[in-house]
Amino acid sequence: MPEPDEVTTVACIGAGVIGGGWVAHFLAKGFRVRAWDPAPDAERRLGRLVEAAWPALTELGLAEGASRDNLTVLPTLAEAVEGAEFVQESAPEDLAVKRTLLADIAAAAPEGVVIASSTSGYGMSEMQTEAATPGRLVVGHPFNPPYLIPLVEVAGGTRTEAWAVDWASRFYRQVGKTVITMDNELPGFIANRLQEALWREALHMVANGEATVEQIDTAITDGPGLRWPVHGPCLTFHLAGGEGGMAHMLDHFGPSLKAPWTRLEAPELTRRLRDDMVDGCETEAGERSIADLVAERDRAIIAVQRAVRASRETTS
Amino acid sequence: MPEPDEVTTVACIGAGVIGGGWVAHFLAKGFRVRAWDPAPDAERRLGRLVEAAWPALTELGLAEGASRDNLTVLPTLAEAVEGAEFVQESAPEDLAVKRTLLADIAAAAPEGVVIASSTSGYGMSEMQTEAATPGRLVVGHPFNPPYLIPLVEVAGGTRTEAWAVDWASRFYRQVGKTVITMDNELPGFIANRLQEALWREALHMVANGEATVEQIDTAITDGPGLRWPVHGPCLTFHLAGGEGGMAHMLDHFGPSLKAPWTRLEAPELTRRLRDDMVDGCETEAGERSIADLVAERDRAIIAVQRAVRASRETTS
Repeated sequence: MPEPDEVTTVACIGAGVIGGGWVAHFLAKGFRVRAWDPAPDAERRLGRLVEAAWPALTELGLAEGASRDNLTVLPTLAEAVEGAEFVQESAPEDLAVKRTLLADIAAAAPEGVVIASSTSGYGMSEMQTEAATPGRLVVGHPFNPPYLIPLVEVAGGTRTEAWAVDWASRFYRQVGKTVITMDNELPGFIANRLQEALWREALHMVANGEATVEQIDTAITDGPGLRWPVHGPCLTFHLAGGEGGMAHMLDHFGPSLKAPWTRLEAPELTRRLRDDMVDGCETEAGERSIADLVAERDRAIIAVQRAVRASRETTS
Repeated sequence: MPEPDEVTTVACIGAGVIGGGWVAHFLAKGFRVRAWDPAPDAERRLGRLVEAAWPALTELGLAEGASRDNLTVLPTLAEAVEGAEFVQESAPEDLAVKRTLLADIAAAAPEGVVIASSTSGYGMSEMQTEAATPGRLVVGHPFNPPYLIPLVEVAGGTRTEAWAVDWASRFYRQVGKTVITMDNELPGFIANRLQEALWREALHMVANGEATVEQIDTAITDGPGLRWPVHGPCLTFHLAGGEGGMAHMLDHFGPSLKAPWTRLEAPELTRRLRDDMVDGCETEAGERSIADLVAERDRAIIAVQRAVRASRETTS
């Protein structure tokens, strides 16, 4: 098995939005990509997806030797994984499909090669049940579009071997990703749990006639969404507390956790949870004072708004 | 009562992070600002908050005549609202405090002047109970920092008169805000309900040792948070469906609404909810095709990442 920085050929299984996004990402990073999808128009679909992504990838800067010509769409799964040093599976989100497909990939892929699933929320333990070599199966969960959003969440199942989780984490970092390696099999991982809570609250509001689709989107794009590329939800609230930071914020806004501001019940704000939030924010802030963080946030919000405005003007 | 575009003097009550942010915003827009807070060091605190905000506001461009010298901190509430043509209340989030303070403001403010509360989630109906002139009391809920985040949610209570909601909505637009005028008194309004659902899920994960503060923040800043300044959660998922848009997305990922990806139960995905989401996305997208939206998103994500990176480098 090659080291993560020695990989030259990857296989991408699945030609949907996520599978196509991975193909574009790996091509832009200079890899040879072997792809397969059972759909008869897989080659055409992948071609269109890569074409749509290429201007953005060119703008970002292609790796040496990167070319759309390095994509080969193969007629069978077995041919696609032949010679691959890493496999990314991006099939539809259906447990039975994933189980069978991962078993087929594991049967065909060269020995010792890590196989990662793009699943949005299944645990690897429930997906690896049919595979003959489950030790090399991991979750490698990207965000749409995989060629631009850095985050990949990596997690193993009960039968996954530790080296595979480690290898996949190092490989994704090698290809420019921000990796969160998880110790446990949390359904939906971390980012999708956060996003899904927000999404379900949005669906409830539309279902109840409390807000429209457009109001919901505006509430995010012109509201808290402007802060989230620079500071996540915890650091954002660290600043809402002023000079007192997260400690002041929890002591001040703690009671709102009892308020019916969402249909999701909050956990009990124990002393320990409060301290974990405060300590976590202080660790994350590191050397940056509250004033530094405020200045950083303000500069970023202005720049983000300008960036979004410019990108909209180019479109229209 | 002046028209929204004739206002020259506003009163800001409260010298915390939000109150100070409003002071900075109105000063930058060229208003004379009269402020009051019961704290003995209110003048010093407001001075520091305005000072911290001023570089960003200067960068954005100050209105003609804008000056920090246009701030007057008064020793009493009655003096602060004297001559004001609009009042923004930003007291601590405590219902008893809000009730009494809004009654005091209503008793002292010039006749016919609109009084808006920055409350994060109380309904105006429950806050206006003590006021002698409740008809002019509205919620005007900003986001931190109020001098940079455009969103303001405007809502009246049962005793608020329609003209006051209308006047406040027009006034906020006049001073550069994105306004969502709500027809109902939804606790937490729209943006805070979305944000609060995400926040409570985050607290549960920390409380259960499922994720750290830093993992949660990274999951957002390097994941879905990069998409939210350009497309809100609905339009984001419209693109996750590929050429099929929201319709394909709901048909494909609908089953995940039953999955334990968050502690928040989803509503039933009825035909009507599905159609409301699909129609809402199509209305919002307007003339923009899926390909246009993908191109817009990709350009924006690249620009947003560059903007955030540049703002971080300036800090360190």
